[in-house]
Amino acid sequence: MKIEAVDFFYLAMPEILDIGDGSQDTLLVRVAGGGNVGWGECEASPLVTIASMICPMSHSACKPLLASVLGAPLDSPTDIDRIHQNVRQNSMDLLQADHALSGIDIALWDLLGKHYQEPVWKLLGYDETYPKYPYASMLFGDTPQETLEKCQEMRRQGFRAVKLGWGVFGKGEVAADREQIMAAREALGEDILLCVDVGTIWGENLALAEARLEVLKAARVYWLEEPFHMGALEAYRTLAAQSKPIHIAGGEGSHNEHMARHMIDYGGVEYIQIDTGRIGGITIAKRVADYASARGVRYVNHTFTSHLALSASIQPYAGLREHNLCEYPVELKPLAFELTTEHLLPDANGAINLPQNPGLGITPDVLALQKYVVQTEIVVGDKTLYKTPAF
Amino acid sequence: MKIEAVDFFYLAMPEILDIGDGSQDTLLVRVAGGGNVGWGECEASPLVTIASMICPMSHSACKPLLASVLGAPLDSPTDIDRIHQNVRQNSMDLLQADHALSGIDIALWDLLGKHYQEPVWKLLGYDETYPKYPYASMLFGDTPQETLEKCQEMRRQGFRAVKLGWGVFGKGEVAADREQIMAAREALGEDILLCVDVGTIWGENLALAEARLEVLKAARVYWLEEPFHMGALEAYRTLAAQSKPIHIAGGEGSHNEHMARHMIDYGGVEYIQIDTGRIGGITIAKRVADYASARGVRYVNHTFTSHLALSASIQPYAGLREHNLCEYPVELKPLAFELTTEHLLPDANGAINLPQNPGLGITPDVLALQKYVVQTEIVVGDKTLYKTPAF
Repeated sequence: MKIEAVDFFYLAMPEILDIGDGSQDTLLVRVAGGGNVGWGECEASPLVTIASMICPMSHSACKPLLASVLGAPLDSPTDIDRIHQNVRQNSMDLLQADHALSGIDIALWDLLGKHYQEPVWKLLGYDETYPKYPYASMLFGDTPQETLEKCQEMRRQGFRAVKLGWGVFGKGEVAADREQIMAAREALGEDILLCVDVGTIWGENLALAEARLEVLKAARVYWLEEPFHMGALEAYRTLAAQSKPIHIAGGEGSHNEHMARHMIDYGGVEYIQIDTGRIGGITIAKRVADYASARGVRYVNHTFTSHLALSASIQPYAGLREHNLCEYPVELKPLAFELTTEHLLPDANGAINLPQNPGLGITPDVLALQKYVVQTEIVVGDKTLYKTPAF
Repeated sequence: MKIEAVDFFYLAMPEILDIGDGSQDTLLVRVAGGGNVGWGECEASPLVTIASMICPMSHSACKPLLASVLGAPLDSPTDIDRIHQNVRQNSMDLLQADHALSGIDIALWDLLGKHYQEPVWKLLGYDETYPKYPYASMLFGDTPQETLEKCQEMRRQGFRAVKLGWGVFGKGEVAADREQIMAAREALGEDILLCVDVGTIWGENLALAEARLEVLKAARVYWLEEPFHMGALEAYRTLAAQSKPIHIAGGEGSHNEHMARHMIDYGGVEYIQIDTGRIGGITIAKRVADYASARGVRYVNHTFTSHLALSASIQPYAGLREHNLCEYPVELKPLAFELTTEHLLPDANGAINLPQNPGLGITPDVLALQKYVVQTEIVVGDKTLYKTPAF
């Protein structure tokens, strides 16, 4: 088949809050070909990503994404690889390209799966998909008491692992951090995995991380996530060498395969966290999963948005049995939950299992979405380059 | 003072050609404060960069650039550092942010220079500025004969160094590459430096690079630029270890300080090429210049656009005497040449000297620019978020 149409939809909550919650808006991507449609999502600023899809050419290596996608043949994963090569060549100087390509790539895999009536993980070469144990991914409470109550709720819901992130942790006194993390451990008891995500706030300041190691160890934290900026590889490596038994995790900011490999090769992370909606989609995420697996590094998804994004994020390591954790957002805004007709809910064992249905097995709820559509129009010179299409 | 206004202007040639010539459009940035204005340029897709300046917030780490700039205090370089920190925090998940910040940062330095009546290089801490010897930066001809004639013209104009890039080189047979490069060497004679830029076309395929080493050595090529994708650090290091006496150069794609440092620390390049209009502006470029200088790596600008961008690109290493080459575009489109009132022309010795005038010492020719303005409008929901302002 040929890729006949690529459309994208800016969806947002009526009000966007100034908090670290990525489920407040999204760019939904729809590709059409051979009588089917596939869906994907970009974990990115919707407006900027739309602009990168349709912007005028600046020169031969700064073309809009659609120049490498529309009309391209799509009969096998090799055709998706070729689209990636073309985007890399044609949009090399377009920084936003990787985020835009991510949503397109996901939609292309979904389309290919529907065309061949196979789940994406089969097309990726896996014979079966193994259960992933979700960790409940939440923001810290504003107070230790609030954190304690949030964790009690997750325990009640049966989660075996919880990750707390962002918010106040790591920004003030170590003593305050101790109260936060001890409240979490108290609520979770001895048996539930507890992870902490500080969202790069220590920049590349190793001392700020080192000052918290004892507190983290006291609370038996399983992993410490994103202590530093993505590129601070030396700081990552130095911390990883002294943090045991706490694992160092990171990589969600990777917007290409190289960045993720550098976190493994030079940064020494033990958990590589990949957002399929940022790194270039399922194609690139799968390469990273293979790379990590071959080096004894655990792959885990980064997902803080919809269940369409969640399915897309798990597909790349669906068949890697040992890599058995998955991030599972539990504080989704209504937009992100209502976005899909189906949901990936924990089974009786508390595990998440990918659908056996064709493609991603998760489809947008087009009717429910209408109320979240943000009408957008971009005019350059005398041409309307983008106007929100009908669903 | 406070940053009172930030405006940006999409400028483009009437027709954009599908060639590797980055001078065909630009995003010009103007900042105003304390009764002065400063100017900068983003080496980036204008439309996508505009979108990143004004997009609606997605969450706390995905805000538009202007949220961290408008209204901020600006009395010293420290204030510019603070703006960088804020952008990194507030726009961490906005991929295009680094390209947008570049033009803003350049304009802020220009404004600060005008405010204190000092050239930017003095504000950067340099006591004097040393001459840079320009290499004429050109695309390969389509045929060896055309390349020969282009090189003869550069020799006639008195250039001591020439760089040929992109086009046909490296894409076909080694024998064809030999004809191209030998034609260049024949035209340039024995004494003129000859560099080759292959614009990452070999991906991370080491063998394609190795197959050309003999040809490059035969033509006494001084440096080979961008053999691989920016992130292919292992391939860079392996090639650098066997390419002598040919130097390996790269780094123009760096959109933050870390990427440039990785090219030095892990990639082993001997020339680090930084585009001030991409890496985050003069602030970040200066940090890379210091880092390179301390490690015996030569810093050189990457510039393929206007003389405003050229001044901004040389400021960060103006006072580093030993780092005495500079890229000098010689095939500028009329837009890029007419963009500025002043130009950085070679002196009697063939060297480029930075202006002693306040700021960047190069000002946009606002009247000449009018005909290149591309009227642009972005509407989201019921709000017009951007409409091309008046000059």
